[in-house]
Amino acid sequence: AAFAQASQVQGPVTGSSVTLFGVADAAVAYGSGSIATKTQLISSGNSASRIGFRGIEDLGGGLGAGFWLESGVSLDTGTGVAGNTNNQASGATSADALSFNRRSTVSLIDLWGELRLGRDFTAHYRNRTDVDPFDNNGVGTIQPQAGSIAGPTSTRASNMLGYFLPPGLGGLFGEVQYFMGENQKHTPAADDGTGLSGRVGWRSGPFGIAVATARTDYQQTATNGDIRSTNVGASYDFQIVEVSAGYYRDKVESFQPVTATGYAVGFIVPVGIDQIKFAWSRYGTDAIGDPAARKLSLGYVYSFSKRSVAYATYSHLSNSGGSAVGLNGSITAPDRSSNGYDLGLRHSF
Amino acid sequence: AAFAQASQVQGPVTGSSVTLFGVADAAVAYGSGSIATKTQLISSGNSASRIGFRGIEDLGGGLGAGFWLESGVSLDTGTGVAGNTNNQASGATSADALSFNRRSTVSLIDLWGELRLGRDFTAHYRNRTDVDPFDNNGVGTIQPQAGSIAGPTSTRASNMLGYFLPPGLGGLFGEVQYFMGENQKHTPAADDGTGLSGRVGWRSGPFGIAVATARTDYQQTATNGDIRSTNVGASYDFQIVEVSAGYYRDKVESFQPVTATGYAVGFIVPVGIDQIKFAWSRYGTDAIGDPAARKLSLGYVYSFSKRSVAYATYSHLSNSGGSAVGLNGSITAPDRSSNGYDLGLRHSF
Amino acid sequence: AAFAQASQVQGPVTGSSVTLFGVADAAVAYGSGSIATKTQLISSGNSASRIGFRGIEDLGGGLGAGFWLESGVSLDTGTGVAGNTNNQASGATSADALSFNRRSTVSLIDLWGELRLGRDFTAHYRNRTDVDPFDNNGVGTIQPQAGSIAGPTSTRASNMLGYFLPPGLGGLFGEVQYFMGENQKHTPAADDGTGLSGRVGWRSGPFGIAVATARTDYQQTATNGDIRSTNVGASYDFQIVEVSAGYYRDKVESFQPVTATGYAVGFIVPVGIDQIKFAWSRYGTDAIGDPAARKLSLGYVYSFSKRSVAYATYSHLSNSGGSAVGLNGSITAPDRSSNGYDLGLRHSF
Repeated sequence: AAFAQASQVQGPVTGSSVTLFGVADAAVAYGSGSIATKTQLISSGNSASRIGFRGIEDLGGGLGAGFWLESGVSLDTGTGVAGNTNNQASGATSADALSFNRRSTVSLIDLWGELRLGRDFTAHYRNRTDVDPFDNNGVGTIQPQAGSIAGPTSTRASNMLGYFLPPGLGGLFGEVQYFMGENQKHTPAADDGTGLSGRVGWRSGPFGIAVATARTDYQQTATNGDIRSTNVGASYDFQIVEVSAGYYRDKVESFQPVTATGYAVGFIVPVGIDQIKFAWSRYGTDAIGDPAARKLSLGYVYSFSKRSVAYATYSHLSNSGGSAVGLNGSITAPDRSSNGYDLGLRHSF
Repeated sequence: AAFAQASQVQGPVTGSSVTLFGVADAAVAYGSGSIATKTQLISSGNSASRIGFRGIEDLGGGLGAGFWLESGVSLDTGTGVAGNTNNQASGATSADALSFNRRSTVSLIDLWGELRLGRDFTAHYRNRTDVDPFDNNGVGTIQPQAGSIAGPTSTRASNMLGYFLPPGLGGLFGEVQYFMGENQKHTPAADDGTGLSGRVGWRSGPFGIAVATARTDYQQTATNGDIRSTNVGASYDFQIVEVSAGYYRDKVESFQPVTATGYAVGFIVPVGIDQIKFAWSRYGTDAIGDPAARKLSLGYVYSFSKRSVAYATYSHLSNSGGSAVGLNGSITAPDRSSNGYDLGLRHSF
Repeated sequence: AAFAQASQVQGPVTGSSVTLFGVADAAVAYGSGSIATKTQLISSGNSASRIGFRGIEDLGGGLGAGFWLESGVSLDTGTGVAGNTNNQASGATSADALSFNRRSTVSLIDLWGELRLGRDFTAHYRNRTDVDPFDNNGVGTIQPQAGSIAGPTSTRASNMLGYFLPPGLGGLFGEVQYFMGENQKHTPAADDGTGLSGRVGWRSGPFGIAVATARTDYQQTATNGDIRSTNVGASYDFQIVEVSAGYYRDKVESFQPVTATGYAVGFIVPVGIDQIKFAWSRYGTDAIGDPAARKLSLGYVYSFSKRSVAYATYSHLSNSGGSAVGLNGSITAPDRSSNGYDLGLRHSF
């Protein structure tokens, strides 16, 4: 559901626990493009495969302390998922093994909200994903996610100090994050990987809206520079269909700056406990030729239970302006289209 | 016990659970050869050191969904065990860190059997191990396992779609697997790492027999090519001794094809809750000189409990035809023999 | 508390269990030196961030078997912590991913003590840490820990056979370890990484004292050679303050041998359930110029509960004789001083 992440653990705390949790999700994925097709078993077609440990300690009077350690898993191979230690290209870590790349935090939680230290999703990522019917998973995910030019902190950041507003503010929710690249001072790239991300939103009954903005510093070169991202999302649950929409803008301040803009419209139709999902999205830049990709995604999620589902997704992507995005590992020529299919099984624990 | 793996989780499902499990096994290992000896602390002399998480959800009417995430552990160093992401040499992953290299699967299970997606043992490996008194662990393991030329999918494969027959077919058991190398099409090595493995067997009281065959595709070169493996195993439990035997054939279709053949005979004698193990095996190829290794293994397993044992194993290996296999890390000259000893402690949890 | 590690699990065993445990600890850390300052989010400012699984099986009559798998976690980034597979530089493993680098052992425990196989802390490290008020964590840790020249086995060793004395010997405690570099014999560096470490101590009421000594073999070169470490520590708990002191000596037998000596004095003052910590330490070598570093550390630990604390630490380090140690990632010129500050949050589970 839209803005589901706005209600994650935040004070007051009313009980202690330690929990093992995770997702095992694999799908047969096929992609076709004008040059080469590809068939794979992929991980995370419906929800990100993962294993995690989280806990919270009730310290009395609403105060609590907690931890959250969550590792991505590539279920098709048993390996992990890549992370990044310093929010810069130099900090990229191997996907071969497990690490708590998804989230690794310690928190202090109270009536005033939550202080959270460690590695976590960035606020502008949360806002982007909360209105994606496909939750940034599988071939269906909206193109402003799949094609993002927003760099190493587009999804998560390490070395972060975050603050979350408490619940109970009449529907208001929000967070602000400061993250560090951790370079020694007095060098030209001293601030690389250091930045801020913030988000503020409001939910009331079926309606939700939120805006997020972020800036990460990088030394200006021909291909890199400060990265600014802003996005806004809104959703309305009409019961027979939940409609969501988002607008996205990412800018890389290289010598010749590049700005990307995009939008997405999504529909989730409940069919008993099943779901039909539909998304239409576009993401493109102002680089020479104005390359852009438009994507139409259609999915069905069949629920055996709340924890176990089977799913099928179809996406069609149209390239223009020299863009050559191929779905599901296929290769397509500039301005040619691509099709992708996922057929999978997801089990949560 | 022989064919123990034939009875792993397969429908109908009758209850939900999530389980943490594992093995911690270390041994002092000594190997001597004609050139150099070696003394080590090894991991997994009796059973593979590991840690895993598995679970199953009862969906009603015999239907269930489950996951299995299992990481190898090198108990002597705390590191992990190498895996492979694409069933090709290029997909080898580091042994330095933990990954769910042993098994990483999501399953749908019903009266019709089990559909299993992810990384898992191959069917022909299961059939090879089920009649090895030493379960492919430690110096005692039969030579058709230790010396196998069957390549990256000899033990496990990633990107696999597997189907298992249900229990209750009058002792019949079996499985078939399709696994993918996941290369883009229209290149000469497009099918590298893609293959099939299947197994069918029958158990009745003290008797069991099973045959398995597999083929993995690789582009033909001077040293590589399609790999075909076939093996058959049988066992009979006479109560005072369980006797098992296996025959093995592996072929690499390089420009000059190489065929390896082997056999193994094993005996497990229960002594109260302890065990005496004996195995005699041979594995050799038709490369120039017909290099071959013969191995005789003798082991004793002392049981403190079902979960905790101490064990001692002795093996003697004879090389011929230019073979130069050294046991336990020792180095031996061609056609010279090698001896190996393990003395260890295993605890399961 | 001092010598806390002397009372870790050792027979007799009186119950079975499997436990998930860990620590999530992050701090904002600032360091200043004469050349460059640095601000970071660090992991493990008060206690080492980690996740572990341990268990013990009661085998009756005091006999037990157990396992312990413990992975370091860099909470600021979600990655792991580096390990070492062969007690030599060549065996260093990446810090990018999780491994049971902290401890990976299987044990047999009885009235006679504990036999422990695998990777573990070395005895001389335990003795060094047991009298460090900062437990080798964060900027405050005593300089004989932070600056140790004692090589790959300074903290832990892989491929270890360890024996621990049982409790109940009138306050006597001790352990001896043999660890292996696992090189093939008959090469000049055959014994590299192989060594012994031992410790013996005595506790009685508020008083404790222990001595440890270790030797690890390495081929002699211009910069390396056998490493010998000896240290002695003592503590007395006056209730209003626990006082500890240690003396340290490490020697590298290179062509031109280098000897380092150091000492530390520590005070822990309980303030209700909070703590004030103070340490004064020095560590220096007899290399040209007699480089040395003196460190003064002051810390306050505020306890929300036994499991959750906030903490602040300040350290001042003075270099002499050409030493150029900078605290918390800062860079300082030879013989200039450095300051460091940690402000953090720790949650144990």
